[in-house]
Amino acid sequence: MSTSSLPEQDVLNDLREIAQQLRVDSVRCSAAASSGHPTSSMSAADLMAVLLARYLRYDFGDPKAPGNDHLIFSKGHASPLLYAMLRAAGAIGEEELLSYRTVGSRLEGHPTPRLPWVDVATGSLGQGLPVGVGVAMAGKTLDRLPYRVWVLCGDSELAEGSIWEAAEQAGYSRLDNLTVIADINRLGQRGPTRHGWDTRAYAARFRAFGWHALEVDGHDIAAIDRALGEAERHDGAPTVILARTRKGRGVAAVEDQEGKHGKPVPSADEAVSELGGVRDIRVRVTTPPPMPPAQRAKPAGTWRPPGYEPGSMAATRTAFGQALAALGDARPDVVVLDGEVSDSTRTGFFADRHPNRFFEFYIAEQQMIAAAVGMQVRGWVPFAATFAAFFTRAQDFIRMAAVSRASIRLCGSHAGVSIGQDGPSQMGLEDLAAMRAIFGSTVLCPCDANQAAWLTGVMADLPGVSYLRTSRGDTPVIYQPGERFTVGGSRVLRSAPDDQVTLVAAGVTVHEAMAAADLLAEDGVSARVIDAYSVKPVDAATLRAAARETGRLVVVEDHWPEGGLGDAVLSAVAAGGAPLPTVRKLAVRSMPASAAPEEQLQLAGIDTASIATAAAELVAGHGA
Amino acid sequence: MSTSSLPEQDVLNDLREIAQQLRVDSVRCSAAASSGHPTSSMSAADLMAVLLARYLRYDFGDPKAPGNDHLIFSKGHASPLLYAMLRAAGAIGEEELLSYRTVGSRLEGHPTPRLPWVDVATGSLGQGLPVGVGVAMAGKTLDRLPYRVWVLCGDSELAEGSIWEAAEQAGYSRLDNLTVIADINRLGQRGPTRHGWDTRAYAARFRAFGWHALEVDGHDIAAIDRALGEAERHDGAPTVILARTRKGRGVAAVEDQEGKHGKPVPSADEAVSELGGVRDIRVRVTTPPPMPPAQRAKPAGTWRPPGYEPGSMAATRTAFGQALAALGDARPDVVVLDGEVSDSTRTGFFADRHPNRFFEFYIAEQQMIAAAVGMQVRGWVPFAATFAAFFTRAQDFIRMAAVSRASIRLCGSHAGVSIGQDGPSQMGLEDLAAMRAIFGSTVLCPCDANQAAWLTGVMADLPGVSYLRTSRGDTPVIYQPGERFTVGGSRVLRSAPDDQVTLVAAGVTVHEAMAAADLLAEDGVSARVIDAYSVKPVDAATLRAAARETGRLVVVEDHWPEGGLGDAVLSAVAAGGAPLPTVRKLAVRSMPASAAPEEQLQLAGIDTASIATAAAELVAGHGA
Repeated sequence: MSTSSLPEQDVLNDLREIAQQLRVDSVRCSAAASSGHPTSSMSAADLMAVLLARYLRYDFGDPKAPGNDHLIFSKGHASPLLYAMLRAAGAIGEEELLSYRTVGSRLEGHPTPRLPWVDVATGSLGQGLPVGVGVAMAGKTLDRLPYRVWVLCGDSELAEGSIWEAAEQAGYSRLDNLTVIADINRLGQRGPTRHGWDTRAYAARFRAFGWHALEVDGHDIAAIDRALGEAERHDGAPTVILARTRKGRGVAAVEDQEGKHGKPVPSADEAVSELGGVRDIRVRVTTPPPMPPAQRAKPAGTWRPPGYEPGSMAATRTAFGQALAALGDARPDVVVLDGEVSDSTRTGFFADRHPNRFFEFYIAEQQMIAAAVGMQVRGWVPFAATFAAFFTRAQDFIRMAAVSRASIRLCGSHAGVSIGQDGPSQMGLEDLAAMRAIFGSTVLCPCDANQAAWLTGVMADLPGVSYLRTSRGDTPVIYQPGERFTVGGSRVLRSAPDDQVTLVAAGVTVHEAMAAADLLAEDGVSARVIDAYSVKPVDAATLRAAARETGRLVVVEDHWPEGGLGDAVLSAVAAGGAPLPTVRKLAVRSMPASAAPEEQLQLAGIDTASIATAAAELVAGHGA
Repeated sequence: MSTSSLPEQDVLNDLREIAQQLRVDSVRCSAAASSGHPTSSMSAADLMAVLLARYLRYDFGDPKAPGNDHLIFSKGHASPLLYAMLRAAGAIGEEELLSYRTVGSRLEGHPTPRLPWVDVATGSLGQGLPVGVGVAMAGKTLDRLPYRVWVLCGDSELAEGSIWEAAEQAGYSRLDNLTVIADINRLGQRGPTRHGWDTRAYAARFRAFGWHALEVDGHDIAAIDRALGEAERHDGAPTVILARTRKGRGVAAVEDQEGKHGKPVPSADEAVSELGGVRDIRVRVTTPPPMPPAQRAKPAGTWRPPGYEPGSMAATRTAFGQALAALGDARPDVVVLDGEVSDSTRTGFFADRHPNRFFEFYIAEQQMIAAAVGMQVRGWVPFAATFAAFFTRAQDFIRMAAVSRASIRLCGSHAGVSIGQDGPSQMGLEDLAAMRAIFGSTVLCPCDANQAAWLTGVMADLPGVSYLRTSRGDTPVIYQPGERFTVGGSRVLRSAPDDQVTLVAAGVTVHEAMAAADLLAEDGVSARVIDAYSVKPVDAATLRAAARETGRLVVVEDHWPEGGLGDAVLSAVAAGGAPLPTVRKLAVRSMPASAAPEEQLQLAGIDTASIATAAAELVAGHGA
């Protein structure tokens, strides 16, 4: 329970005992596992003891309760401390605590949401705080509920730029529902941190970004209590509590010593004795007052994607943006995030229609993705957009979103050389490879506006990380308005019983492939054309049938040759078990420069003429 | 030339004229191209005019002169301004200026080192400053030469976390040879920036990170001159000049207006008239004093990799670290960068032996990669290391390094599920996919210590981005000390005329594949085993021969199924043109948790038994 008066002496003693229990349990579980990070846990034990016993409002019996606070261990390697807190709160028992890091245990080396009390996976440093910023933004502006967000940070991770993206976002947004508890134990993995115990250096940085900063002795229970109370009361800015601590605190064999990171404490039994022995204190954590789930607006009708006239021209990015705006009418849970390029990605259509559910992150892609993850923790359905190329800036956050079992939807515009004159820095040429290699992801690459619009709606209900690749330029509309496209599907755009080769394409190359099939027909070659808009999962059955029936595949993509559509198609036909067809991959194989879009396709060898030539050569048996 | 006295009135007028010429040429070249960013150029024209005429020391006739300053356009979209400066300096002519953004022109939409006066490609915002920090670090501690580094930043990019990683690194390292000129024109791509013209907000942030910060009117030539002079004189800290400017300055139709980003100025002829017409001023840029190239230590002997006894056990990461330390003896140009995990990546061996060529970046992977790029600008041979998983944090920097034609060497340790208990946040499971999809990259995955050591030496001479994947645990040493391995090669470890299947592996899975071949032999199945240590380029000839001769391939990798070795092998055999063999890909297909290394391989289905079963099924014709 929160209070502004100082705790009595016996309360302080109780808190010290809880802290010692957290240390003992950290030592015990990592000793049982013969691995883990007990010393990084022991430094923060006093901080977490006071938080758990006096400030956190959380119903461990109902982790989805709308009023629960959120506690995020940004220093995920301090997982023994988190698990010790769970035991102290009665959420897990002794046996589970000691299952730490074993096969089948929910108590992984770094926390994941396999535990219902864990919002997101951490362990890649510098991510927990930006995610916490997303949760706090949801609390302030979407849920409008009084829960608080507490983030435990390590000092080493304060070197990550993502921390300062978060500091900027939180300071500017005046997120006074957010408190960072920074465990300044001065020792990183391989030795001293840059700033050691210089909490003033950190305080100056946070204050410059608009934060309320407090410096305390992280082993002084009363001082910690005062700081947490002040953080809770402080209005108009997030608070960071910079706590000077000693790594391995309480066990002389490891306390404040180098070379003790990420390994069990030697002589665990002696360490436990030194810490006063095993305890079985049960902390009665304050539950939040009952409150209804966050109110959402009523849907304004059912979802109908915008329609585009077949034969007209439209950019898939525009269709995405217009579909998203329409989706926002039907789905009050949809929120949109952008990185200062909403005029390019076309999320601006959504921003205009639903300004309260649109979030501008300026050019801070890591914070943008982290906030999307944080908002989906609270049940929102985030779409985040930037140029396809610039998602690489947040690749580690997307990777970790998959470990978090987070459902986030990404749209990358300006994919491929077909953007034209801006040159390679702006071209997404590795996005399909990067997004395919995210666990459980869905990767979609529409070629026309109706397809893009429909798939945008499909994404709203997809679990995991999904990605839509859109193009900058206008492409012909070839599908009907409202035509349905499924994840894992494809469209056979052209097919005949005597097809001698199959052209597989996605996005802009579909139109080049169709034109190539026309050219080939003039030369007496019958070509099948498949629009493989679902790159992951790819339509293996249709591709295998085409491989079997035509014996030859040409796969053409506006992407590097590695890891994209070509590799997806090869992998799918290989998994069929039958001997494989002859396959030729057309892709971007030299570094592009500036040129007009049609020149770019030609220079990259992925235009109509190149496809026709490759297919004709394959049919003539000239190798691949 | 640098001076502390204020310029006379006629000098000020000359500088104004130069600035107007830069504006006019920015307008002209983007009008000719019908695209580009003239307004973002015009805001910074006064700043660059004063820099070019009075502070930059640069021999445009000898861009590799050791004493040349470095000018980096972190706001790469202001390329028209850079190209206008090149014309003013006499480096390019009128005709080339007007070739901007056309096919074949060196004047790309965003600058690249195709121009000899450009160090690195920019255009992904927030990268030029961290690269400049790397160049400045080289100047201070490696070259020990008095050149200066000038970085032109935009205001939008100051939202990127990478900027604050750079601010921390430069402030802490007291890089007083570095000056940031920040063009605070208050307008981003889609509208106002977060802080508008509030240069105080930016100054507070930079000062907190230890910088000297100046706020000036960016259109007041005398004020700019004073600020640049002060930056040059200021000792002990880097300087940022925060210049309040107006986007599109000088042309009323666009000046300080929204919606004018990234497009030519309307009515270019009128704009040129408004700016006073076309000029042909030639700026005599001060050349640096002649100076010898940076002195390097004498090599201590020739390169000999450390040797490991066949039959013993050793980790490839350890071999990498020991080889790197030995390489440092023979190669005084080798420098090593790490992200506070040198005890894990084993670059600590180098740090101990060559402390003056080792750079600790703490946990700031973006700055680490950017500094590697900056140091290679100055001719150094950087190796940068962290966990394989955490290179995803810097993926956009690695992508841009390729556009920069930079030669950097990366080593990712702790690859795959075989790291064991730490769990998925620490496992590099997408690194092969990510690194393969970098243009011109080399991707190596050694399975034993002698191979890792040899390949470390090979990397020193590789152009482009090269990547070495190392393992955490010990693996059997199977090759001889000093055995040579080439990029694009492989090792056929087991082969017989009657082989019925080929097992293709790399890294830890090589040993599983060898054991599987033993198991298969017991069941009368003859299996070939290929160590495909060179994942890109992969040894296509050997793989195709194996495919032809054995008809069946099992590819096994400690990586997600997408984009890694399996896809590389499929792509190589497919490119052979012949009908393909039956292929089965074994890879990590479910989200790992904590488990012992051997348990992880088993759970992922990439251990000995799984490989043997898959191969036996293929041979028995049970599909894939």
